[in-house]
Amino acid sequence: MTQLLKGKPVADAIVESLKSDTNVLTTKKIEPCLALIRVGNKSDDVAYERAIVKRCNAIGITSRQIELPEDITQDAFLDELKKINEDQKVHSILIFRPLPKQLDEKVIEINIAPQKDVDCLHPENTAKLLMGDESGFIPCTPMAVMEIFKHYQIVLEGKNALVLGRSMVVGKPAALLLLQENATVTVAHSRTRDLDKITSDADILIAAIGRSEFVREDHIKEGAVVADVGINVDDQGNMTGDVHQEEVKTKAGAFTPVPGGVGSVTTAVLAKQVVKACKMQMLS
Amino acid sequence: MTQLLKGKPVADAIVESLKSDTNVLTTKKIEPCLALIRVGNKSDDVAYERAIVKRCNAIGITSRQIELPEDITQDAFLDELKKINEDQKVHSILIFRPLPKQLDEKVIEINIAPQKDVDCLHPENTAKLLMGDESGFIPCTPMAVMEIFKHYQIVLEGKNALVLGRSMVVGKPAALLLLQENATVTVAHSRTRDLDKITSDADILIAAIGRSEFVREDHIKEGAVVADVGINVDDQGNMTGDVHQEEVKTKAGAFTPVPGGVGSVTTAVLAKQVVKACKMQMLS
Repeated sequence: MTQLLKGKPVADAIVESLKSDTNVLTTKKIEPCLALIRVGNKSDDVAYERAIVKRCNAIGITSRQIELPEDITQDAFLDELKKINEDQKVHSILIFRPLPKQLDEKVIEINIAPQKDVDCLHPENTAKLLMGDESGFIPCTPMAVMEIFKHYQIVLEGKNALVLGRSMVVGKPAALLLLQENATVTVAHSRTRDLDKITSDADILIAAIGRSEFVREDHIKEGAVVADVGINVDDQGNMTGDVHQEEVKTKAGAFTPVPGGVGSVTTAVLAKQVVKACKMQMLS
Repeated sequence: MTQLLKGKPVADAIVESLKSDTNVLTTKKIEPCLALIRVGNKSDDVAYERAIVKRCNAIGITSRQIELPEDITQDAFLDELKKINEDQKVHSILIFRPLPKQLDEKVIEINIAPQKDVDCLHPENTAKLLMGDESGFIPCTPMAVMEIFKHYQIVLEGKNALVLGRSMVVGKPAALLLLQENATVTVAHSRTRDLDKITSDADILIAAIGRSEFVREDHIKEGAVVADVGINVDDQGNMTGDVHQEEVKTKAGAFTPVPGGVGSVTTAVLAKQVVKACKMQMLS
């Protein structure tokens, strides 16, 4: 019997736990605040922003939505960022990416205040991720995967975990987080040969390769735990993951659906990091 | 016929290449300089320092040896570091570690000038390592392994590479460097189960687990390339690697000896990073 690792119960549990945190903060007259910096009006960004604001409201986190013009200059952007860095009422910052071409992400990364950098852009947080230093922040998607594993009590220690994909937003951080939990971790990617053979030993598989339904039945070990990070939308507007769900659901021991899996935990995970940032700044 | 991947020819080739760099710098009246900060008199540190100074001299790199008292305070250490950070004649800094207990490495890491940080302590360089940004610096031992592979034209792309060990000085950086070269990379460690099975698929194996002769014949795939990073010294003063060399040498396709392998390339690799730091500071 394959277990469906739905995201909603995970998100709900995180939210409940955060509410008690924000209640404690409220008694101290502290209101966690997330600044959302959006350049232009991309519909994906607007939709994600709306979901974040809704989630934050429900928890007792205020959000400050900052919309900047699509043609903003680098200097003007950095001025805005500096203001938010210095604003003591704002505890955390999320910048929607990718940014327009005239903005240099490398420069922006080193200018965000590290203690407010809940999306792990600043080198200080990137370095902490590599070092396994838990005082830093972690990109939301791989952290959402780990929260799902934790919620459903998936044992990771000593297991063979395979990460498909090596991006800075998912693949590499996921590999490091799995290593931190004492899994034996393999990172495979577009240049990997004999993928079937490699996947056949994986007890845990995280698919983050950005190709619709790439992972098929042959790729899965009987009984494996499969986390599908992919969000692919076809011409008809249908959403698919990086895993062929129909094929995998009979063979995997457990898997995250798309939609309703990893993606539905990311805003809760973001909120968790906002509360963490607020507590670190205000209570220590 | 097993190929012996000796370190000396690799180091010699690096040195020759660096000499032409330093010759060019000399014509511009620039002398690359490495500051070596040693706290106390540990014999290992003194021996390594002597080897570094000798290597640097031969290349045309000056070295400044700074010996600090074993009981130096954190503040006094940071004052010394600040002086060297600000000294425009010094282009790079190496701090011998581990440091005495009264010195907080975490604080020292963020206080070393990142552009002089040839041993990859500062978060900015650690982050660049994770991101694959080649403008940073890389810990010397994993870089020495990669230089050996490059020198002996070991193909890494698409190969299954296994790193035994997950330290910040060897295991994790080695895994990232292999990933950068498009290998499929697995990191195994003390909690890994069924190691024999995992190693049996490895085309490339880097042993950095810190246990004398841990890797035996059974761990090796026929024809594998084995890099031995271990330096273990027994009661009689005999040096062994993490690989049982006698057993492995008949089965591996190629391997690095101990001594005379990876360890004999590290000072050349350090010198390479010193010259890189100098060029970045003086020529750009």
